[in-house]
Amino acid sequence: MMRTTFLLLAAVCAFAQAPFGLAIHGGAGNVTAARIGPEAEKAYRAGLEKALAAGYAVLEKGGPALDAVEAAVRSMEENPLFNAGVGATLTRDGTHELDAAIMDGRTLKAGAVAGVMHVKSPIGLARLVMERTPHVMLIGEGAEAFARAQGLEPVPNAFFRTPGQWESFRKLKEREKARPTTKDTVGAVALDRHGNLASATSTGGMLDKLPGRVGDAPLIGVGTYADNRTCAVSCTGWGEFFIRTVVAYDISARMAYRGAPLEKAAAAALDAALKLGGEGGLVAMDAAGRVTQPFNTPGMFRGLRMSDGRSSVALFGNP
Amino acid sequence: MMRTTFLLLAAVCAFAQAPFGLAIHGGAGNVTAARIGPEAEKAYRAGLEKALAAGYAVLEKGGPALDAVEAAVRSMEENPLFNAGVGATLTRDGTHELDAAIMDGRTLKAGAVAGVMHVKSPIGLARLVMERTPHVMLIGEGAEAFARAQGLEPVPNAFFRTPGQWESFRKLKEREKARPTTKDTVGAVALDRHGNLASATSTGGMLDKLPGRVGDAPLIGVGTYADNRTCAVSCTGWGEFFIRTVVAYDISARMAYRGAPLEKAAAAALDAALKLGGEGGLVAMDAAGRVTQPFNTPGMFRGLRMSDGRSSVALFGNP
Repeated sequence: MMRTTFLLLAAVCAFAQAPFGLAIHGGAGNVTAARIGPEAEKAYRAGLEKALAAGYAVLEKGGPALDAVEAAVRSMEENPLFNAGVGATLTRDGTHELDAAIMDGRTLKAGAVAGVMHVKSPIGLARLVMERTPHVMLIGEGAEAFARAQGLEPVPNAFFRTPGQWESFRKLKEREKARPTTKDTVGAVALDRHGNLASATSTGGMLDKLPGRVGDAPLIGVGTYADNRTCAVSCTGWGEFFIRTVVAYDISARMAYRGAPLEKAAAAALDAALKLGGEGGLVAMDAAGRVTQPFNTPGMFRGLRMSDGRSSVALFGNP
Repeated sequence: MMRTTFLLLAAVCAFAQAPFGLAIHGGAGNVTAARIGPEAEKAYRAGLEKALAAGYAVLEKGGPALDAVEAAVRSMEENPLFNAGVGATLTRDGTHELDAAIMDGRTLKAGAVAGVMHVKSPIGLARLVMERTPHVMLIGEGAEAFARAQGLEPVPNAFFRTPGQWESFRKLKEREKARPTTKDTVGAVALDRHGNLASATSTGGMLDKLPGRVGDAPLIGVGTYADNRTCAVSCTGWGEFFIRTVVAYDISARMAYRGAPLEKAAAAALDAALKLGGEGGLVAMDAAGRVTQPFNTPGMFRGLRMSDGRSSVALFGNP
């Protein structure tokens, strides 16, 4: 009897200590309820819910965190509301150049692509780079050629264009305003039933970026990192500042070398980047299922769904 | 009298504590005295001496560490013996695709380029990205367009071809051997009279790489990093493994968060990468002028010249 109770208690504790689930972001920026209006708010919430559901379904069935983050990010790539895949922002030349990265916290294997223009799902291609090449990162024409060799049907660059992003581009050109503005990105971090972490990030980059510009998103250690021993991270924000302080790996390092808990490590790493300038946020999760989603912008589209009942979707405020 | 002695002593101590100088590498790999022969050994030594002299001349005049690392790396890019600029290795398609990065430890500003095919000095272009764009990294066609806009005369891709690299490529193709072999890179770290650190890395990447492949060299935090508060680092080796553990920033983090001295931090960070597989080495320098040049390959072309008299050039052995 006592033994049964003990085992039951142990099982409950194990469950309580090791939930599974995922956390996502759909970009950080100057968004407020007043600015986007109730219609758009509803649509963004639904988009985040859909991405969470896609990732959670994988985890619930006992699937790997790697599949969950890919599914969540792919859902946002397909959603024209987010700046990744369809709905990607435009370069100074009016083209779409997409970047993505994915990392497996169990093996430290990673895949990344940058500057792709004809690949429907950049995160899917990043996964293929990880699994089917001896490389971690492929860019531009080489990445496109690899995609074709893998049987991915190329899409015209205009496949990614939405009226909203085109309008932003047009307005920017009319005003001849040089300073880049849009800095959204989508991303996900997940912990599976087996205790493995993974992270994925995908983006169209910043509005008005120079063609060829690579931000933080596809850079392993900067916008994307995962290590079972510490945490999984996906960043969103003004990538240039994130690169200079290597934000995602900085969180992992603060946990590994200083023993900082996830939340403090993430806050400190984000702070170090933002001290240089810029703005943004991130989502991070540790192997115990702790989650943090700090940002310094008026809003960050974000969500969370964990097996222990934690669940939320939020767009604005109280970072 | 006592005061004068004290001041003199303080000045001597300050000088002793804060030397200036630079350390470089010209790639790590399976090189032994027997394999390359005395003629090549002499030529490599002369190439390293020339690069050291170019960088040291800048520092001696009181110039910035940033100029010194650029000068040293540019010297090796121009030298057909090294796998960077002229003498770059070939991709699977028989083309040259060059990567480079530079970072200023004082400001944490950085510039990087990847996949450029027509730019004479990739490190020079990385410096221009850092200084004349709001971005950190430009790749492929976008990087080429920026180079042309900056007035850099494009060179044909064959500009970088040497008989030696072409021969390696041809041999590889004949044997249909798929496994990449050449993993050299050139790099420099420097400390100037003002106490500022900088680092620079430039490479043709690995022989037989897929077109579009990006290794560690141009990735800030991975192959290249500099922060006055910790160290300057330039890596060489099998980039994929270096990316997955974010080697350069890992050294900086071990110093910052764990208080590890340079040599231990570098050895541990390199070890973490090599545990995953691959091979390679790095050069690193801290703000006190300490230098470490660890590697796990039979050889690493390397050199060092410091104002306190330390000076060496070595190609093989005792890592």
